[in-house]
Amino acid sequence: MAASTHIFQAPKGMRDFFPEDMAVRRHLEQAWRSASIRHGFAEINGPTFEHLDLYTIKSGEGIISELFSFQRSGGDTDYALRPEFTPTLARMATAKGRSLPIPTKWFAIPDLFRAERPQKGRLREHRQWNVDILGVVGPEADAEVIAVAVAALRGLGLGPADIRVRISHRGAAASMLADLGVANDRMSDAFNLIDRREKLPPEVFAEQAAELGLDETDVTRLGEMICTRIPAVQSPTTIADRHGLPADSVNELETLSTELDRRGLLPFCDWDLGIVRGLAYYTGTVWEIHDAAGTFRALAGGGRYDHLVELFGGPSIPACGFGMGDVVLGLLLADRGLIGGDEMLLARPDVFVLSSGIDEAEAMLIPLSTALRDIGLHVRHTWKASRNIGKQFKEASNCHARLAVVLGDEVGDGAVVVKDLDAGAQFDVPLRDLSTWITRRLAGGASPA
Amino acid sequence: MAASTHIFQAPKGMRDFFPEDMAVRRHLEQAWRSASIRHGFAEINGPTFEHLDLYTIKSGEGIISELFSFQRSGGDTDYALRPEFTPTLARMATAKGRSLPIPTKWFAIPDLFRAERPQKGRLREHRQWNVDILGVVGPEADAEVIAVAVAALRGLGLGPADIRVRISHRGAAASMLADLGVANDRMSDAFNLIDRREKLPPEVFAEQAAELGLDETDVTRLGEMICTRIPAVQSPTTIADRHGLPADSVNELETLSTELDRRGLLPFCDWDLGIVRGLAYYTGTVWEIHDAAGTFRALAGGGRYDHLVELFGGPSIPACGFGMGDVVLGLLLADRGLIGGDEMLLARPDVFVLSSGIDEAEAMLIPLSTALRDIGLHVRHTWKASRNIGKQFKEASNCHARLAVVLGDEVGDGAVVVKDLDAGAQFDVPLRDLSTWITRRLAGGASPA
Repeated sequence: MAASTHIFQAPKGMRDFFPEDMAVRRHLEQAWRSASIRHGFAEINGPTFEHLDLYTIKSGEGIISELFSFQRSGGDTDYALRPEFTPTLARMATAKGRSLPIPTKWFAIPDLFRAERPQKGRLREHRQWNVDILGVVGPEADAEVIAVAVAALRGLGLGPADIRVRISHRGAAASMLADLGVANDRMSDAFNLIDRREKLPPEVFAEQAAELGLDETDVTRLGEMICTRIPAVQSPTTIADRHGLPADSVNELETLSTELDRRGLLPFCDWDLGIVRGLAYYTGTVWEIHDAAGTFRALAGGGRYDHLVELFGGPSIPACGFGMGDVVLGLLLADRGLIGGDEMLLARPDVFVLSSGIDEAEAMLIPLSTALRDIGLHVRHTWKASRNIGKQFKEASNCHARLAVVLGDEVGDGAVVVKDLDAGAQFDVPLRDLSTWITRRLAGGASPA
Repeated sequence: MAASTHIFQAPKGMRDFFPEDMAVRRHLEQAWRSASIRHGFAEINGPTFEHLDLYTIKSGEGIISELFSFQRSGGDTDYALRPEFTPTLARMATAKGRSLPIPTKWFAIPDLFRAERPQKGRLREHRQWNVDILGVVGPEADAEVIAVAVAALRGLGLGPADIRVRISHRGAAASMLADLGVANDRMSDAFNLIDRREKLPPEVFAEQAAELGLDETDVTRLGEMICTRIPAVQSPTTIADRHGLPADSVNELETLSTELDRRGLLPFCDWDLGIVRGLAYYTGTVWEIHDAAGTFRALAGGGRYDHLVELFGGPSIPACGFGMGDVVLGLLLADRGLIGGDEMLLARPDVFVLSSGIDEAEAMLIPLSTALRDIGLHVRHTWKASRNIGKQFKEASNCHARLAVVLGDEVGDGAVVVKDLDAGAQFDVPLRDLSTWITRRLAGGASPA
């Protein structure tokens, strides 16, 4: 084994998670998982890579350049790192066939991969929360998945002044585009173009719009329509009337409005005709969550995709859901001062055990730490040779331990000194009562012995 | 989007995690994470794929056939899905350089990948718990990482009759092999051969041993030595004397014995000269955890690797640690009846809200569910159109809900009926007290209003 002075880096667009970074990601995941479980969703997951054709069947060969794909050395099967979770979800639902419960409420927290040039808020690997309801045709399912997304964001400290759920409907968007002269078979190209508009220079947008059959006047009209956004506390008919949207889409949005209201969500939502989503498979309601100021990329995106499971050979089953990644969310939380800057997301030790260095204390340091860990406590002690008590207290304080247990001369009499490092109070506790005493103190109910 | 009747499968050796499977994996992960945190380890993670040369620098080009490697379409950088976590750990420690705390206690729960033919207990993707201490030269660190591993397994219900920690020392093994005539530069080939012996037919083993310079008598002697195993409640000198092991290795094992004893671990451990570990980078103590009957592959493997961080251009720093995968552990737990067969690892709803179908109940179903979710409760309700109360109770019972809240005629008087589905008891509760009543009841302290 030759020594090397080359320091290896994580690959471009990939992340190392040191303890502080990991504490942030765990904080996001806990908010995601808690919101999912409170709403009765069960967690699933699938393989990190899938057969390549799982992605090409839906999106065509064109997607291959956006994927990390490979074969096994000497093998002939094409695989790809999953770029999104929905195809896996559809495959798993298909595998269950007729035994799939109705409704099926699933969530997943997979790692996803994109073979793109990394950009701010968009990395080559990210972790994405996915929440889906299969088997419910009505807008109460759309409202519920929005409720789950908002519950997680509220759990992280974000309110209606920080985030906005921007909602539209593919039917409404298609009707507008048809009015402008977009042919039916170019509709999904048009959705894709609108979805990417903020990333394109105006002349490129106009050029690509022209290819869809839109002249300059049409592009101006389109621009006006997709800038239409009103708070959802107003009825969606307000904009429907203005833009002549089809009645069935508007009816769905009205029912959705009622369902959002029942869940207290209207203050978080806007009706926004600029939301269409880029992916081909959406069929009804579509929505995104953005920071209110519009500084970052979308935090989450979702909608209704009633034909997806069928596409994978499964039963015809209505479905809706969303994905929310960890990268943009982390940027927004840092921007709002809700994470970062301190270590307080790291797990705090319940107990730091100190030894004065006398034989009785030394003999007890590890067995006592072991016993306290066995009853579920997070316990630390110094690993330094020095038994200077001041230095050990400094270590205890540096890792934000709640209690310090000092093994000193009192050990001979079957007692220890316990210091509550938050309260600054100090107590003599008999060794035989120590576990009970500590458990009670940490629960907030202890009074000194 | 064309319909397809082809049902896609997960790739060979990869797994779909339906809710029951995922509940099992979360159960393992919670035991792993809890044991890590109780012992003061902080969680880290790294990229799912790394630069290919991170793996070839240590193991040579020969490892490439065991990896899933790839380039980005149009790119020229070689990547590989991580087959183990230790190189990432060494890279991250190296990146910290002189600012790395001493000791550094890290754990990680990454997904790992092997481009092999899948076998029982060995899949192409698995999740592996990694625990490492950097910066401690003495056996107290080896004892602590063993303590963490055993704490997690005990947390899952396994005792000394189920699992055995089999411990040896690379120095002792090298000395035995040198006695048999194995040259110093063939030592790591010899470790690898011994490590694989149970997977090889005897004649292949003898053939490969001959290439290392061992004749038939040597192979017999080697076979006797590596079958030497005694309970660790006996002193390691017992076998050291028998096999003439070097004093420094034996001293380390004796100190380790003391450290294991302080942690109450000796009843779980054996001294076992058959343990050498296959990987080249171990330098001292090596150990594996097996099921006591020896039915399965190793549950965990680890040891000391004092030169690894240096190899990646980092500081010279002693280190030890282990990895434990989810696949063999899952097989053992199922074999012991500690998981599987029922749904009890799935999250139980705290509350199932039922509606009699009258207008007042219908108007309250979703707002009440939302309010209870907002205070942190796991709440479900039926998604069926029918308001048959018996069917709703059946649904509540099928998902193992703890409490059923029935919205019926009493709603008009500001009251609901709450049924404790575990206890079978039923209570009338005023709506205004409902949140408090439920919270108290679930905490086990409620008495009926």
